[in-house]
Amino acid sequence: MLSKSQLKLITSLRQKKYRNNQKLFFVEGIKVVNELLNSSFEVHKVFCTNDFECILPSDDFEIISEVDLKKISLLKSPNQVLGVFKIPSAKKEENNGLTLVLDTINDPGNLGTIIRLCDWFGIKEIVCSQDTVDCYNPKVVQATMGSITRVSIRYTNLHAFLKSEERPIYAAMMDGKNVYKTSLKNNSILVMGNEANGISKEILELITDKITIPKFGQLQQTESLNVATATAILLSEFCRA
Amino acid sequence: MLSKSQLKLITSLRQKKYRNNQKLFFVEGIKVVNELLNSSFEVHKVFCTNDFECILPSDDFEIISEVDLKKISLLKSPNQVLGVFKIPSAKKEENNGLTLVLDTINDPGNLGTIIRLCDWFGIKEIVCSQDTVDCYNPKVVQATMGSITRVSIRYTNLHAFLKSEERPIYAAMMDGKNVYKTSLKNNSILVMGNEANGISKEILELITDKITIPKFGQLQQTESLNVATATAILLSEFCRA
Repeated sequence: MLSKSQLKLITSLRQKKYRNNQKLFFVEGIKVVNELLNSSFEVHKVFCTNDFECILPSDDFEIISEVDLKKISLLKSPNQVLGVFKIPSAKKEENNGLTLVLDTINDPGNLGTIIRLCDWFGIKEIVCSQDTVDCYNPKVVQATMGSITRVSIRYTNLHAFLKSEERPIYAAMMDGKNVYKTSLKNNSILVMGNEANGISKEILELITDKITIPKFGQLQQTESLNVATATAILLSEFCRA
Repeated sequence: MLSKSQLKLITSLRQKKYRNNQKLFFVEGIKVVNELLNSSFEVHKVFCTNDFECILPSDDFEIISEVDLKKISLLKSPNQVLGVFKIPSAKKEENNGLTLVLDTINDPGNLGTIIRLCDWFGIKEIVCSQDTVDCYNPKVVQATMGSITRVSIRYTNLHAFLKSEERPIYAAMMDGKNVYKTSLKNNSILVMGNEANGISKEILELITDKITIPKFGQLQQTESLNVATATAILLSEFCRA
């Protein structure tokens, strides 16, 4: 049974403020919940219908009705289970290999796709500006398809972080050098900017290498690639090298 | 003023059946509507608020209230204008260069992103299976950001189309050859499959070259890349060659 206080808690976790207070977030659906259960993430409580094959100790889960699942779900078609997990404390990865830096990414779907891409390409760490969308936003967690358990993500003052770095700092910019003709160093940083405004002014002075994906279409109208697809192409370029 | 019959017409265009009957589709927002007005697409009628700077002959547009714009809009924050345009007849492009083939792409956002990518990479033609989502679906048109005016898209029986082709037929598949180590021919076809099920069984026998984007992450759990990000990486590989 779903208690009133549980309903209130889960609904509150849709908002960043309450996620931060409670140090909890939630995720939905059989596949993604199972991925989180099999990861290093700690479970708070799993809410599932009778159909869900739950192998947790009985304290860790609660059987609820489909009607109650609908109440707590953000999905159009809730899928058997919603899991509430503890937000792990952000840990700093060793600075080697490629670090992806996100400067004010706003769209949850874009961040989710980028986390999934980092998982695919073996990028261990994403460093986000403090105003980038929260990675424990339900829409982000859902879009990562479980990849959030395998990529370390932290939020920090980007200017201070980049200033302390000795690795080359690449940034995707319209006026950069053709990425296909640039020799990319693997032990480096790649900065991707905001969907509408690109890289912040205060960050620009810290960039050592501007790169761009050249346009092959003849017309000038295509303004830019979506930030997630541009990240896909650039991570592929760094990894294939 | 928005008449009842206009309201009914525009609302009906949310459905493929009525778009096909009327040979009309609609698109919203200043930027995208202006892109379409400046393209070869023929305008049927533009509905706009007083704020929109309209340079059309007076027969071609209708000033409506913000309340009426909300009634016909699919956007959370309608933006001054909704344009109804004629669906152009699909024309067959000459078979040279790279043709992208989409086998049962279901998600409007994915198709929109892929059209925008083709525009960027100068791919002139997309050939879709008959069950791929309609490119004049409002969510698709919106996601293309105007690119739909610069890429030719047609729907056909893929088996028959591919069978008649003499160009190499590449397909993105999990068990394909490493794309970074494959010499890709520019005068060819690239097939991308369905989000959940990949390439259809009946198409498989016609594929001449299976390719894959290798996974760099150590763990096996990341199942696959999203079809739009995989298309981004593969088009980049074809074009950089």
